[in-house]
Amino acid sequence: MTEAGAPFVFNVRVYIEDTDLGGIVYYANYLKFMDRARTELLRSLGFDQSQLQDDGLLFVVHSVNVRYRKPARLDDELSIVTTIKGLSSASLVFHQAVVRAADSVALCEGEVRVACVDAVRLRPKALDTVFVQKLNPYLDSNC
Amino acid sequence: MTEAGAPFVFNVRVYIEDTDLGGIVYYANYLKFMDRARTELLRSLGFDQSQLQDDGLLFVVHSVNVRYRKPARLDDELSIVTTIKGLSSASLVFHQAVVRAADSVALCEGEVRVACVDAVRLRPKALDTVFVQKLNPYLDSNC
Amino acid sequence: MTEAGAPFVFNVRVYIEDTDLGGIVYYANYLKFMDRARTELLRSLGFDQSQLQDDGLLFVVHSVNVRYRKPARLDDELSIVTTIKGLSSASLVFHQAVVRAADSVALCEGEVRVACVDAVRLRPKALDTVFVQKLNPYLDSNC
Amino acid sequence: MTEAGAPFVFNVRVYIEDTDLGGIVYYANYLKFMDRARTELLRSLGFDQSQLQDDGLLFVVHSVNVRYRKPARLDDELSIVTTIKGLSSASLVFHQAVVRAADSVALCEGEVRVACVDAVRLRPKALDTVFVQKLNPYLDSNC
Repeated sequence: MTEAGAPFVFNVRVYIEDTDLGGIVYYANYLKFMDRARTELLRSLGFDQSQLQDDGLLFVVHSVNVRYRKPARLDDELSIVTTIKGLSSASLVFHQAVVRAADSVALCEGEVRVACVDAVRLRPKALDTVFVQKLNPYLDSNC
Repeated sequence: MTEAGAPFVFNVRVYIEDTDLGGIVYYANYLKFMDRARTELLRSLGFDQSQLQDDGLLFVVHSVNVRYRKPARLDDELSIVTTIKGLSSASLVFHQAVVRAADSVALCEGEVRVACVDAVRLRPKALDTVFVQKLNPYLDSNC
Repeated sequence: MTEAGAPFVFNVRVYIEDTDLGGIVYYANYLKFMDRARTELLRSLGFDQSQLQDDGLLFVVHSVNVRYRKPARLDDELSIVTTIKGLSSASLVFHQAVVRAADSVALCEGEVRVACVDAVRLRPKALDTVFVQKLNPYLDSNC
Repeated sequence: MTEAGAPFVFNVRVYIEDTDLGGIVYYANYLKFMDRARTELLRSLGFDQSQLQDDGLLFVVHSVNVRYRKPARLDDELSIVTTIKGLSSASLVFHQAVVRAADSVALCEGEVRVACVDAVRLRPKALDTVFVQKLNPYLDSNC
């Protein structure tokens, strides 16, 4: 069983599509990596985004806050290390670090606030209790 | 009035997002430029994609055929030169050349077959007669 | 002559490539729009990114902070409204708002800190005095 | 040992970033999936793109030919099935099929001709004999 506060780790590989003419990963593309990791965290708990959508639930990004430290490069394997830093009735705050797998150097880190909305009316919708319970293992201890 | 066979020309600028570590436009991104040009061609005739969708009509790409000749680079202004090469009851074939605006050098050219489908059932749907008439100016003379 | 604090406005159009399955612009793509606007602001002052790179100067994004308010949709024309909020010896802070052109509704806004580095050694490099002077018109009055 | 003609299979997952407002994978993004698979095929043979670049070798796409049959959707796991259909002194032709992993339905297939060029002068460069030998397992029997 995962202990409270353990992060969810998802690895991605850097491909040519992710790079720009500086030979490094383009700054917007880290947001894609972080999104993939959030999707996989939910999937690991039994929630597919496509299933959630069919259930009338949509997660929309409310705000992001990203600090770029060192560049990722082609062929790098990156670990996206995700914890849940905050949880309110209808929103979640993820903390996500992008770490170079080969040497554990932190390249970038971000905070992403995601709101839960009704898929039809796009109004805030309270997170389901079962859902919140399942998120527990990834909750920051001081959350 | 536009003469039959005159191409529709739409210009795009190359930004960092479009480049890869080779310092050139990533090969998949030319398909975005071509898509923008097709969208603008339709818009110039009074058809917004969002309007068409509301009308239950969707254009889906059936096939593409692209030949890359020379690379586009950051800051290049590109002209996407589009004509309609073929027209059947429920599909259109666009010919699209990507030309460097500064010196008219052809960098890439493609053929894109687009099918018209019913937005709900995703079944082929005949092109509207009014729509076809409006496309006339961009039809290749030997089409 | 542009008065101090006047924003630089650059318009972009939303294409299919920018949208996701929610029918709205994907959250990472606003960073592309903002990057285009910064590039065009520099270009309007006579600085091409490709020229700057040849001169051994590179701008790298240090951090971003984006707040998403309302979604942009296909065919929307967006105004990216940019001012310079901060200026230090080797970095710039841009404030960028994404506004729907049709009704001036603010959809999203962000702050982007960009560092000026030596293109070869990737070490901080002081901004050129001429460059800083040219940026003056876009400086926030309380900057 | 891999038998001659056996395909190289690489799986990718469809994320929100890959979809468009039609709820399906955007047509240009299949080219990204195919590129990832070619990169992984080379990596499986011991060739990293970043290593190849350091060795002064660059693969540039010469042409693509893609036929879209059925759409891929969010959360789909896709198998990119790649064989080498042609091989000349300085170029390679890949055949790549995108297959939905869950039910083996072919969604899209393409042919991609890639040229080997000198990284500095961008002139055609003959493929290394060792390299060609290593590609052998993935060569189409009638190639």
